[in-house]
Amino acid sequence: MLLDRIHSPTDLKQLSTPELPQLAQEIRQFLIEKLSVTGGHLAPNLGVVELTLALHYLYDSPSDKFLFDVGHQAYVHKMLTGRKDRFDTLRQKDGLCGFVKRSESEHDVWEAGHSSTSLSAAMGMALARDLKGAHNKVIAVIGDGALTGGMALEALNHIGHEKRKLTVVLNDNEMSIAPNVGALHNYLGKVRSDKTYRKAKDEFEWLLRKVPAIGGRLAKTAERLKDSLKYLVVPGMLFEEFGLKYFGPVDGHDLDKLMDTFRQADKVNGPVLVHVLTVKGKGYSPAEADSHKWHGITGSYKIESGQVLKPVGPPMYTEVFGNMLIELAEKDKRIVAVTPAMPGGSGLLGFAQRFPDRMYDVGIAEQHAATMSAALAMEGMKPVFAVYSTFLQRAYDQVVHDICRHNANVVFAIDRAGFVGGDGETHQGVYDIAFLRHIPNMVLMMPKDENELRRMLKTAVDYNQGPIAVRYPREAGVGVALDPDPQPIPIGKWETVREGDFAAILAIGPMVQVAEEAAELLKRDGLNVRVVNARFVKPLDEEMLLKLEQEHMPMLVLEEGSMSGGMGGAVLEFYAERDLHPAVRIAGVPDRFIEHASIKEQRAEVGLTAEHVAQELRAATVLKRQRATAT
Amino acid sequence: MLLDRIHSPTDLKQLSTPELPQLAQEIRQFLIEKLSVTGGHLAPNLGVVELTLALHYLYDSPSDKFLFDVGHQAYVHKMLTGRKDRFDTLRQKDGLCGFVKRSESEHDVWEAGHSSTSLSAAMGMALARDLKGAHNKVIAVIGDGALTGGMALEALNHIGHEKRKLTVVLNDNEMSIAPNVGALHNYLGKVRSDKTYRKAKDEFEWLLRKVPAIGGRLAKTAERLKDSLKYLVVPGMLFEEFGLKYFGPVDGHDLDKLMDTFRQADKVNGPVLVHVLTVKGKGYSPAEADSHKWHGITGSYKIESGQVLKPVGPPMYTEVFGNMLIELAEKDKRIVAVTPAMPGGSGLLGFAQRFPDRMYDVGIAEQHAATMSAALAMEGMKPVFAVYSTFLQRAYDQVVHDICRHNANVVFAIDRAGFVGGDGETHQGVYDIAFLRHIPNMVLMMPKDENELRRMLKTAVDYNQGPIAVRYPREAGVGVALDPDPQPIPIGKWETVREGDFAAILAIGPMVQVAEEAAELLKRDGLNVRVVNARFVKPLDEEMLLKLEQEHMPMLVLEEGSMSGGMGGAVLEFYAERDLHPAVRIAGVPDRFIEHASIKEQRAEVGLTAEHVAQELRAATVLKRQRATAT
Repeated sequence: MLLDRIHSPTDLKQLSTPELPQLAQEIRQFLIEKLSVTGGHLAPNLGVVELTLALHYLYDSPSDKFLFDVGHQAYVHKMLTGRKDRFDTLRQKDGLCGFVKRSESEHDVWEAGHSSTSLSAAMGMALARDLKGAHNKVIAVIGDGALTGGMALEALNHIGHEKRKLTVVLNDNEMSIAPNVGALHNYLGKVRSDKTYRKAKDEFEWLLRKVPAIGGRLAKTAERLKDSLKYLVVPGMLFEEFGLKYFGPVDGHDLDKLMDTFRQADKVNGPVLVHVLTVKGKGYSPAEADSHKWHGITGSYKIESGQVLKPVGPPMYTEVFGNMLIELAEKDKRIVAVTPAMPGGSGLLGFAQRFPDRMYDVGIAEQHAATMSAALAMEGMKPVFAVYSTFLQRAYDQVVHDICRHNANVVFAIDRAGFVGGDGETHQGVYDIAFLRHIPNMVLMMPKDENELRRMLKTAVDYNQGPIAVRYPREAGVGVALDPDPQPIPIGKWETVREGDFAAILAIGPMVQVAEEAAELLKRDGLNVRVVNARFVKPLDEEMLLKLEQEHMPMLVLEEGSMSGGMGGAVLEFYAERDLHPAVRIAGVPDRFIEHASIKEQRAEVGLTAEHVAQELRAATVLKRQRATAT
Repeated sequence: MLLDRIHSPTDLKQLSTPELPQLAQEIRQFLIEKLSVTGGHLAPNLGVVELTLALHYLYDSPSDKFLFDVGHQAYVHKMLTGRKDRFDTLRQKDGLCGFVKRSESEHDVWEAGHSSTSLSAAMGMALARDLKGAHNKVIAVIGDGALTGGMALEALNHIGHEKRKLTVVLNDNEMSIAPNVGALHNYLGKVRSDKTYRKAKDEFEWLLRKVPAIGGRLAKTAERLKDSLKYLVVPGMLFEEFGLKYFGPVDGHDLDKLMDTFRQADKVNGPVLVHVLTVKGKGYSPAEADSHKWHGITGSYKIESGQVLKPVGPPMYTEVFGNMLIELAEKDKRIVAVTPAMPGGSGLLGFAQRFPDRMYDVGIAEQHAATMSAALAMEGMKPVFAVYSTFLQRAYDQVVHDICRHNANVVFAIDRAGFVGGDGETHQGVYDIAFLRHIPNMVLMMPKDENELRRMLKTAVDYNQGPIAVRYPREAGVGVALDPDPQPIPIGKWETVREGDFAAILAIGPMVQVAEEAAELLKRDGLNVRVVNARFVKPLDEEMLLKLEQEHMPMLVLEEGSMSGGMGGAVLEFYAERDLHPAVRIAGVPDRFIEHASIKEQRAEVGLTAEHVAQELRAATVLKRQRATAT
C-alpha cells in the first residue's frame, strides 16, 4: 500500500506522478471503509481526492496556506498530514474533528464550518504576507454553492480590486449541500457544458485571417473584435470581469491536467481562479448516484449496498415540522417556505413537492432569505423561514433591521437549536436566544415535545402581529401522540407540567424532560420539585413569574443555550425591573465553545443532565437563602 | 412655481414633459434652501431629482412599488407624495424622517437605513405579486456602492434565477458614501467611459459583411461570433450573465432619455437592470465639487459659499480615535486598519494618508471586513476593524465564527455606539452589548471620556489574547486633557469616580457623566451616591461586584444600550451564578425602536438623564429592600 508510506506532505512528494492515481484509489477505499462505521462527509471528500493530492504535491504546506471553505472536505488533507490513524474517532468526543482544526495540525491554518469565508480569509492572509515581505502561496478551495454566499462575493470584489497574488480553486460539482440554485449556477453550467472552446478559438482565428486588412477608422473596431474574442476563448469571463485571471475548466479527477493548470496559474502575479470540475461521491457508486444523501452521513452504512443504518424511534423534530407545514399550507394559502440551500436538512422536500410554487430555495444566502421574507410578509404572505440556528447568525442584521423593525409577519423555523453533536463548535445552536430576545417585536418559543412543535407552528401561522420564531432541537421527538388538530397556544403562556414546592425548574425544549427526570431523582429524597415548561422565551409568562416570587419559590432556569444573555438573564431582568430579587440560578451553556461529541455527551459536559440538575438543587445554597428571606 | 401645484403623483402626471426640467430646477432650489437649515443628505438627493420624477411620472405609486435602497435619497419622492411642507422638521423629533417611513405615507412601502436590502425586498414583493396574480411593477433603486454589499449580490443571483418581472435601477454615481472600491466598481467605470458602443456595432457589422460566406464546420463558429458580438454592443454583459436584461448606460439627468429607457425596459417580461448615470450633488456646485463631504450634512450651511457651520468644542470621539490610531501605528508596525466603506465617518482619512499600505477600505462589505480581519490577525497583524455599531450587526456571524472562535487578535473600534440622533431607529447603536457579550473570548470596553478612549485603544493594541472591542458614542468628548502617553488599563478593572454609601451607579461611557450629575442632584438632599465607571462590559470587575454586595449596596446599572441582554443582565447573571441576590436595577434602552431626534432628546425619551436617574434612586423601593436584607 502506498498509503502506508504517507505520514506527511513530504512523504507524498517522494512518490512519482504515475503512482498518484493508485494512491487516490487507496485513499477512496480508506474513506469508504472508515466512514461506513463513523459516518461523516463522504461524498464531498471523494470528490476532492485528486485535487487535494495535486495541491499537496505542488505546494508546501504549512508555509503555503490551504484554506478549505466550510472545511468538511478536508479529510484527504487530514490523511496526508499525519492524521489517518485517527479516522476511527472521526466526529466523536476527543476524536478527529470533521472540519479543519488548528489544534490538530500545523497544516490546518483556517477553521470553518459555515460556508463562504475562505475568500475573505485568503485576502487577509495575502495582505499579511505582502506586509511581511513573505512569498508563500495562499490557496482557497471553495465550492460552487459557497461561492454564491454574499460574503464570498464581497471578498471576490475586493480580491479583484487589490490584485494580490492568491489562488481561488473553484471546486465545481454542481452541488453544494442541495442542488444549487441561482444565476451564477446557471452561468457555471453553461461554462461546464461547453467543451469546444479551444477548437472554436482556432477556427475563429482562421476566420479573422479572411477579413481584409484593417486600418483607419476601423482600427478601433478591430481592437474591440480582439477583445470580444476573449469572450469566446475564455469561458470564465465573468470572473475576469471581477479582476481574476481565469483558468479552466479542468477535469478535477485528471491529476496531470490539474497539476499542469496549477503550474500555469502559478505564473500569474495576481489573483487567479482555477475552475475545477469534480464529481461529488466519485468512486463510490451509491454516493455518485445520490450525492445529496451522501453529502453528510450520520451513523454507519453498509458498504456493498450503500444502505444507511438508521435508528428506529420517534420522528425527528425536523420531519414533524415538514409534515405540519404541509398540513397548514393546505388550509392557508398565504404560507410560503424560504430556505437558504437547506431544503432537505430543514425537512422541506415534501413541501417543495406539494407546493413547488410556494417554495423558495435561495441558495446559500441567509441575509437575502431573511429580507426577502420580510417583503413577502409585508405583501400579505406568511413566509416560513426555515433555517438552522447557527446559520441564522448570518442574518442577524436582517432580522433586526428588516423583519423586526418592520414588524413583519415572518415565521422563523429555527432547526438545530441547542447542541448539534458531531458537527461541533462551528454549528452549535446555542446563541439564538441571546441574539434574538433583545430585538423588539420578536416572539420566541421552544416546544417540550413534537406535538407541542405542531401546536407552536399553528400558533405562529395564526399570529399576525409581527415576527414569531420557534426553535427546536436536532433530535428525535420524545414519542408522544400527534394531535391531528393541534390547537394554538396563548402567546406568553407557560405550562406547569409537575407540581412541587421545594423549588421550581423553569425549563425549555428538551430540558423539560431533563427537569422531569431530575424531579424524579429528588422525589426519592422526599423533595418535590415543580417543573415548568417555560415554552415562551419572549414574552415571558409574567403572571406565573410573579406568582413564583410570591410563593418564595427558589428557581432554576434550565436552558440549552448560552448562559450569557439567555432565558435565565431574561428572568433576572424581569424581576430586577420590579424590584424583586428571588433566588434564581441558571443552568445552561457556559461562556466557551463546545467541541464535537454526541449531543448527550455535550449536555453532560456542561451539566445539562438530570443527575447534575438534581445535585445542584440538593446543594441548596440557593434554597436556604430564599427560605431565610421568606421567614 | 410648478412645485406649488404638486401634492401627489397624480398632480405630477398633469404636467407636460417639457415642464419637468423646470420642476426639477425648483425641487433642487427647494432642497438646497431647506437643508441649509436642517442639514440632511443633500448630495444623494440632488443626484436623483430627474430619476425620481421619471419614476413617478411613468409608474403608479403606491400600487407600483418603489424601493429606495438605504432610503436617504427619497427626499424628492417625499416632496412628490405630499410631504414638502414638512421639510422644516427634517430629521428632528416628531418631524419628517430622513429615510423612507411607512407611517408617513402609503407611498413608502419599504424602509431601510442599512444598505443593500432593496433587491431582496424587490424579489419578495415580486414573488408575492405573482402568487396573488397581481400585475403591479416593482422597482428597486440602488446605488453602485450598495450593489457590492453581499446581500445585494445574493439577491441578484436569485433574481436572475427566478426570472420574475422587476426593475433594478442602478443609480451609478461612482460614489457611495466614500469613493467606491472593488472590482465591480472598476467594471462599471469601464462601462461608463465607453461612449461608442452603437458606433462600434455598425462598424462591426460592416466588417462581418466582408467575411466570406460561412457554412459547414464554421457555422458553429459563426454562431459564437454573433454571441460574442453581444459583448461589444451590450456594455452590461456582466449583469446579463447574472440573468438580468441590461439597459443603459443612460444619462440620469436627461428626462427624455430616462423615460424612453424605462419604457423600453418595461416591455421585458423578466428582471431588468437600468443603468443610470447620475452626478451626486447635481446643480449645487459645492456639493458637486465634494460629494463626499455633502453626502450627509449635520447641521446648517451657508448656501452661497457652501460653508458648513460647525459647533466649536472638544473633538469628536471619532477624531480622537483616528489620531490615536496614527500615534499607535507609528510605533507598532502590526497595526492595519479595515473599514467597510466608511473611511471618513470612522475618522480614518488621516491614517489612510499616513499609512496607505496599511489601510483597507473593502467597500460596503462588513462580513468580508470582519473575516479578513480574523485572517490578518492570525498571520500576525493587529487589524483594527473600524465600524459603526449598527453596521457591525451585519457581521455578527463572522464575529462569532471567524474572530471569536479563532480567538483572533482583532481590535474592534465600534463608533456610534448608543443613540445616533437624526439618523434614527435604523442606525441606533443600542444592540452591540447584547449581541457581543455572550460570545466567548470577547473583551468589551467603553470609555467615560476621550482620554480614556486613548487609553483603551492602547490597551486593545497591547492585548494579545484574543478579540477586544472598544465602543464609543457619536458625540464630542467631554473636554478633558489628552495624556500624550496614555497608559493601558488592566483588563476588567473598573474605576470608582465618586464615593458614596447611599447607592452605587454602575455606569458606562457617556452615562458616567449622567451618573455624576445625578449624584450632584442627590447630594443636595444629603444622599451620597457612589459612581462607578464600569468601563469593562466584559469581563466584569468581579472583585468590585463582590465588594459592593458585601457592603449591601443597592445598585443601578446605567447603560445606553438595550436593557435586554445588556450590561445590567450581565451583572444580574454574575450574582445569580454565586447565589447572591443584591438589589440591582437597570436603566437603559427599553424593548422598542427609538425614532429620530437629537441624541439628548432620545436619552430623555428613555429616562437616561440625571434628573430621571436621581428620581429613580430617590424612589428607593430598591433601597428599602436592600437595607431590610442587610439588617
